[in-house]
Amino acid sequence: MAATASPAPGSAVISLLTDYGLADGFVGALHSVLRRAAPSVPIVDLTHDVARQDVRAGSLALLRAAPYLAPGVVVAVVDPGVGTSRRGVAVKTAGGNGMVFIGPDNGLLLPAVDALGGAEGCTQLEDRGYFLPAPGPTFAGRDIFAPAAALVAMGAALAELGSPAGPETLVRLQAPACSRLEDGSLEAEVTWVDRFGNVQLAAEAPEVSANPAGAGGDGAFKAGDRVLVHAHRAKRHGRGTAVSRDARVATAFADLAAGELGLLVDSYGHFALVQNGASAAEFLDVAEGDLLTLRTGLAGA
Amino acid sequence: MAATASPAPGSAVISLLTDYGLADGFVGALHSVLRRAAPSVPIVDLTHDVARQDVRAGSLALLRAAPYLAPGVVVAVVDPGVGTSRRGVAVKTAGGNGMVFIGPDNGLLLPAVDALGGAEGCTQLEDRGYFLPAPGPTFAGRDIFAPAAALVAMGAALAELGSPAGPETLVRLQAPACSRLEDGSLEAEVTWVDRFGNVQLAAEAPEVSANPAGAGGDGAFKAGDRVLVHAHRAKRHGRGTAVSRDARVATAFADLAAGELGLLVDSYGHFALVQNGASAAEFLDVAEGDLLTLRTGLAGA
Amino acid sequence: MAATASPAPGSAVISLLTDYGLADGFVGALHSVLRRAAPSVPIVDLTHDVARQDVRAGSLALLRAAPYLAPGVVVAVVDPGVGTSRRGVAVKTAGGNGMVFIGPDNGLLLPAVDALGGAEGCTQLEDRGYFLPAPGPTFAGRDIFAPAAALVAMGAALAELGSPAGPETLVRLQAPACSRLEDGSLEAEVTWVDRFGNVQLAAEAPEVSANPAGAGGDGAFKAGDRVLVHAHRAKRHGRGTAVSRDARVATAFADLAAGELGLLVDSYGHFALVQNGASAAEFLDVAEGDLLTLRTGLAGA
Repeated sequence: MAATASPAPGSAVISLLTDYGLADGFVGALHSVLRRAAPSVPIVDLTHDVARQDVRAGSLALLRAAPYLAPGVVVAVVDPGVGTSRRGVAVKTAGGNGMVFIGPDNGLLLPAVDALGGAEGCTQLEDRGYFLPAPGPTFAGRDIFAPAAALVAMGAALAELGSPAGPETLVRLQAPACSRLEDGSLEAEVTWVDRFGNVQLAAEAPEVSANPAGAGGDGAFKAGDRVLVHAHRAKRHGRGTAVSRDARVATAFADLAAGELGLLVDSYGHFALVQNGASAAEFLDVAEGDLLTLRTGLAGA
Repeated sequence: MAATASPAPGSAVISLLTDYGLADGFVGALHSVLRRAAPSVPIVDLTHDVARQDVRAGSLALLRAAPYLAPGVVVAVVDPGVGTSRRGVAVKTAGGNGMVFIGPDNGLLLPAVDALGGAEGCTQLEDRGYFLPAPGPTFAGRDIFAPAAALVAMGAALAELGSPAGPETLVRLQAPACSRLEDGSLEAEVTWVDRFGNVQLAAEAPEVSANPAGAGGDGAFKAGDRVLVHAHRAKRHGRGTAVSRDARVATAFADLAAGELGLLVDSYGHFALVQNGASAAEFLDVAEGDLLTLRTGLAGA
Repeated sequence: MAATASPAPGSAVISLLTDYGLADGFVGALHSVLRRAAPSVPIVDLTHDVARQDVRAGSLALLRAAPYLAPGVVVAVVDPGVGTSRRGVAVKTAGGNGMVFIGPDNGLLLPAVDALGGAEGCTQLEDRGYFLPAPGPTFAGRDIFAPAAALVAMGAALAELGSPAGPETLVRLQAPACSRLEDGSLEAEVTWVDRFGNVQLAAEAPEVSANPAGAGGDGAFKAGDRVLVHAHRAKRHGRGTAVSRDARVATAFADLAAGELGLLVDSYGHFALVQNGASAAEFLDVAEGDLLTLRTGLAGA
């Protein structure tokens, strides 16, 4: 770890992702601490509106941000286990210009780290004089993660933040469900419902997947195809009734008539169910975490 | 266009206005892309909470921001036509220190451009190697507009972004309604309801209008005057019942008694209906896009 | 005042706290004005979601931010009296590296100023050519406070902003209620309900209080103790029914069982009522401004 070079001073950006919301001043406190220690380092707020304490949603938001991250340090905090024995960690990626991800070891960081080449090194954060003195145990972002991030952005090596930890010991969340069923249907979890009501699925489109034999990799979905969408298990919401809808494979929102449900590859390379100017999530009555099946080759569809 | 000088490198600020909201990470992606290409250029978030896909509301928000913009580049995205044949454009203003506005050609940019002296030049954005590779067609802000903005902020000429386009070919929205009726009433559209419930009208106050013969230019409203406010057409909300209220012309919130409706010149130079410590929009039951008439010279008012 | 040195040019940060919200473009206007005058000064948004025109809530949010502020200038605006004769002021702190607080003289600034050593000097803002010309009287943040802040951040002395004013003449709000009752109970006002539903009380924990003889200073609350929480006066909400709940003194969220109410020292050094993964504010049905009593030494509790 000690040999791991950090971003060159002056070239780093600090990116932030939390579930703090913008109302309470938590994010302002993070910025204040960062500005005291690293006044001229640019800060990017990826989002602070991850659903409260939803580590999974945070990890997926961070994964979506990963390919576009400015080089430097990422602080991510969705941390229901704050104050327990869960570790704080700094993880350096093998690819992506050696980004450093800092946050709780609860699965939040790993999907993005994996997308940037995996963990090349990992440090368990320990107080080597850089923690801020804190009256209570509840604000690790301000008192531990932000000071650590400022140090790294200013050129500190990971080894200065604590003791080496094996990347293989990091907590890993179960990946979103995505599989091909026996009847040829694609079953995939809803990974994201955005502001516009677009429903992103765990299935990556083959064009952008490194694994063309994976979900959708058989080229089953062609523009113009009809697809039967079945929302058969509403995990989070306990709804008893399933919904079945007909969708059409499209390449752009503009291909869709008003009220028509479309299946397209979204701007993150995932399959998504969308409507043109309306909310597909409302139309399908689905939420993040729900499972959908997509079936093609419909007779008479 | 090639002769059009861009802001000097180092002096530009990039200002952003979108309907992305802050929850989804869309704004974070814009910032990340900008920071990768232009790490030290200051970024101003004008607002990202324009009503979803409401081009008109976005154009009015940008117009309000125009007189105060920091010199440089503006990226504005409210873009229901993303993925259609609508063009992406960069427009340089004749005044305002030669600001460059970048966004969809759907009417969003022009009111602000006009307020800064009109379009001196215009380029239709084309991929000359600066577009980001994108799996889907749906995120022009991240993949086209932000990279273009970073180039301009770093000193690129507009001609490097694509082919010249005639400013007269740019899509232009209908201006908000504002006219003097035969009986002397002023009819004006509600252009904005702010967080405090203040109701801004399309009518500009004569003091700040370059056209003193225009709406309100006859000096019809004097401090202390009584004005009958009639909300006679609730375009968006289909409400059947009109509302009539008595207002008093004021010069400051503090002139108004509790619960009293006031008509004053707001901080943007427009007439606005306000209450002191309450929401005039709720009191009048009006929303953006509604039409109001204001009538003075009331007998016994 | 003229002898009062301001932050050295180049080292200042401008921190902002308002009730503007992020939707209307008010904050964007502040940033634009600051960027025009001080393009390279870092800006920290502490929060812009203070409850509308709630000066008291704003003053408490600013007080919480105070210990972490980056050196430089703070602009705070929660200003129901805008347009009245209330003064705009710039206040320099004796401690905290000589921060300068700028905003309305309505009590908003003083708690934070006091926390940073009190007011060393104060200037009443007057137009010495730096106010922005404004069509209406309603946007002091953009037209007065931001230009003043940019001047100070760039090295201007407070004396350049207006006339000296006695710090003792500044408006001061009543401090949040916190007292020890005759029966030994601690009575304290709710100063904050955060996004997670944690209920902060005016009572500071002795460990971090400079006044160990003050509220809680007798060490009455020890980890594991049972405390009876009585919400006996819901000032703002007019609820007729009081609520009594049993709580346990804890040192971390993780000490608490699911659904258990805990009393701990929060990350700002105040006592707070919390639940692990749930909203204590909902559980207790309390809001900011409500009064609670905490009683220990319960028989059989």
